[in-house]
Amino acid sequence: MPNSNETEHFFAKLAAIYPLERLLTSVGSLAAFKSDGLTAFEVRPRAIVMPESEFEIVETIRLCQNMDVPFVARGSGTSLSGGSLPHQDGIVIALNRLNKILHLDPDRRIAIVQPGVINMDITRAAERYGLFYAPDPSSQQVCTIGGNLAFNSGGAHCLKYGMTTNHVLGARVVMADGQLAVLGGESLEIDGPDWLGLFCGSEGLLGIATEITVRLLTKPEAFYTVLAGYDSIELAGEAVGLIIASGLLPAAMEIMDRMSMKAATAAVGATYPPDVEAVLIVELDGSREAVEAEREELAALIRASKASATLVAQDADQRAMMWKGRKSVFSAVGRLSPDFIVQDGVVPRSKLGFALREIDRICREHEVPVANVFHAGDGNLHPLILYDGRKPGALHRAEAAAAQILRLCIELGGSITGEHGVGMEKREFLPEMFDASSIDVMRRIRKSIDPREVANRGKMFPGGENHSTTLHGLHPLEKAGIAERM
Amino acid sequence: MPNSNETEHFFAKLAAIYPLERLLTSVGSLAAFKSDGLTAFEVRPRAIVMPESEFEIVETIRLCQNMDVPFVARGSGTSLSGGSLPHQDGIVIALNRLNKILHLDPDRRIAIVQPGVINMDITRAAERYGLFYAPDPSSQQVCTIGGNLAFNSGGAHCLKYGMTTNHVLGARVVMADGQLAVLGGESLEIDGPDWLGLFCGSEGLLGIATEITVRLLTKPEAFYTVLAGYDSIELAGEAVGLIIASGLLPAAMEIMDRMSMKAATAAVGATYPPDVEAVLIVELDGSREAVEAEREELAALIRASKASATLVAQDADQRAMMWKGRKSVFSAVGRLSPDFIVQDGVVPRSKLGFALREIDRICREHEVPVANVFHAGDGNLHPLILYDGRKPGALHRAEAAAAQILRLCIELGGSITGEHGVGMEKREFLPEMFDASSIDVMRRIRKSIDPREVANRGKMFPGGENHSTTLHGLHPLEKAGIAERM
Repeated sequence: MPNSNETEHFFAKLAAIYPLERLLTSVGSLAAFKSDGLTAFEVRPRAIVMPESEFEIVETIRLCQNMDVPFVARGSGTSLSGGSLPHQDGIVIALNRLNKILHLDPDRRIAIVQPGVINMDITRAAERYGLFYAPDPSSQQVCTIGGNLAFNSGGAHCLKYGMTTNHVLGARVVMADGQLAVLGGESLEIDGPDWLGLFCGSEGLLGIATEITVRLLTKPEAFYTVLAGYDSIELAGEAVGLIIASGLLPAAMEIMDRMSMKAATAAVGATYPPDVEAVLIVELDGSREAVEAEREELAALIRASKASATLVAQDADQRAMMWKGRKSVFSAVGRLSPDFIVQDGVVPRSKLGFALREIDRICREHEVPVANVFHAGDGNLHPLILYDGRKPGALHRAEAAAAQILRLCIELGGSITGEHGVGMEKREFLPEMFDASSIDVMRRIRKSIDPREVANRGKMFPGGENHSTTLHGLHPLEKAGIAERM
Repeated sequence: MPNSNETEHFFAKLAAIYPLERLLTSVGSLAAFKSDGLTAFEVRPRAIVMPESEFEIVETIRLCQNMDVPFVARGSGTSLSGGSLPHQDGIVIALNRLNKILHLDPDRRIAIVQPGVINMDITRAAERYGLFYAPDPSSQQVCTIGGNLAFNSGGAHCLKYGMTTNHVLGARVVMADGQLAVLGGESLEIDGPDWLGLFCGSEGLLGIATEITVRLLTKPEAFYTVLAGYDSIELAGEAVGLIIASGLLPAAMEIMDRMSMKAATAAVGATYPPDVEAVLIVELDGSREAVEAEREELAALIRASKASATLVAQDADQRAMMWKGRKSVFSAVGRLSPDFIVQDGVVPRSKLGFALREIDRICREHEVPVANVFHAGDGNLHPLILYDGRKPGALHRAEAAAAQILRLCIELGGSITGEHGVGMEKREFLPEMFDASSIDVMRRIRKSIDPREVANRGKMFPGGENHSTTLHGLHPLEKAGIAERM
């Protein structure tokens, strides 16, 4: 923590950039920003600033660099990996006021938006032209496009459509040292290295995007959404393998287990076939003819997969309800348990069945209930590990189970994160995914832009000097004293 | 050029790494490497080394860094932008002996290959499993996957399938300073920044990949390939707009003008409808049912586009011949003209018709014949500007026309390269695409790996200290004295 003279000087400089109503320093104001979607972590920042222009962002970043004050950019704070958790010596740059769709060109099928625009609002604006923005994280009603870009967000339909990186064409960026850069352009044809791809997923370490150009796609003419029930989650997992092996590429393939269904029913009234252990939601989309042709193939595959029940969405409302149920699970689980850890690991699709059995075994061993809801088509698992933080040792057990699940993903040749990012949560796992030399190369590239690691200091890379703790039992949160609510 | 003591020391060190048969220094041996697909440039390097292991590459790169000797990696030398042109003070690291397919896993649909493997050989090896490697540059019979990775190569079918960056999952890389890194993995689900995307398309400036993991796709069940003839190239261009606007996504959409057809007929005996000014080749692929449904829609669109003739490939042989004709054009044009410049610009698809008219006007103005053959679906133009290098001023006129075409692409909101890269050819155009601050950010990232710019020195970025010339009339080649053949 800087001394008080420095602090005074820093705040005076901030006040020269921002009017009082956009520079928050009261304990009450700061409290609203002390956490994000990874609720087990809480850190109070020194100040919140709310820029309304790129110029203010440049000034803020230059000031932070000059005075070695860490900053973190924040949209809606929905990060599930602690990506927008503040630094105790730093400030939060809240981008919510930069929430304009600057330009929408239906002919070129692009939109140019500010970072604080809500994901769903792009589709809402594009709808009148028969267009939509494809990446659909479960939080799409609230999360911002700036956060999506920073974490290369996925979603249910990324099986067919790809992640954020496949839908962002260009960005105007204030780099982490205040230098402006335009990365990418309006075309998918790329000159040289994918500079924008480097920025996309950089978790706030390389800078702040101020204008983002996204692709819009033509809304599919037809959908076919089917929900198949299975007597075990492994059977549902094997059905996914069967469908993929057939060569069909559905728009989405999602699995929910019994506990997830229970949560979705409680939260939004979604209904499921009785007496099934898991459901698989498969959606086809495309031209009427293509969907017509593929639905028969899909129906035959589902029959072959030993589904014990099948529901087909008969209209747009039924389809919407199936998705509402699926997307409600993360927040709905809050009704079943006071606390939970959402994990986000990837396994090869061929190993889904094995991975699910192992997750079940691991969670039994650590005596923590688990709900499984995930992007099955991608092999992207989202076990929700439930615990009651008020009970001694409960978080520790949940963390130990989560850590073991991540190591399982690595062993099976998968990844420690499919879409939530490394953030604060998994930085100590990075060395288990990548060797030291590779991490060193990554760090050198980061330092070429930000030598002092001022932008989102302490995230992604292991051994950050702040928050001397890591989740998942390596250094239990309880000892670190940074989680105020515990 | 280093002094003779240093030279002696450098060669002694090289000889400690390589046996004599893999260290070439004779004038005759060097001549074979003095140029690449951009034949207007020729530079004799100091030596060629032919590593057979990653270890030798590491040793070579470290030696080059220690002694400040530039190096360029080379596969088959098919770069059309001078990307593998040697540096006069440097060496060529020829990767042709690292040409093994190390692993091919049909279940996981991946192959792990060495950089010197020929693009087409991956598909040949995968064929028995019903799989193929999608990116298909016209040079796919000879170009290497290492070069494809370095230049993010495209091809006719990239309209539907994407570029190399969409098909490479991971790479083991000797970075430009000799440090080893593993970038990406076996999954498309990416952790953090797209480090591999940064490497892919970096044109040899960031290092040398020694093992590349590529995705294999299931060979489509059915194809439908149609060749439509038009009375003008603009009409063919407008047909592309019509098809795209319909929502159909063909696997490929290629346009050839009359001169390109003439070249293809002369080279491989491909035949075309008589009395048409341009042909559009459209290919659908996918499941039998989907192709069946889409071909009717496509036929209606082609009728509506005022095609004056239509040929449908009736079997695999006819389909193969249509593609053989298309892919032969670059080399076939050599029969029509002693020299030519292949341009590679991108325009928004909606501006194709206008761009083609302008290209015609520009080439008339500079009195150079032009052949147009291009990836129309992507808006990726490939005007072939014909000239006779023996005639005074001819190259200069061709370069002036090429430069004007590139500026047209920029003005229309496109790009100076769709797939051939910046390389040697277009480095002085980079500042017309990107502002100085953005280029500075890119250069800083490059320098974080290679501060002295030893790897492929003088390429991509403007103002390199070597080869003090640029193509396209800014500083005519004639004055620079580096093009030995002129």
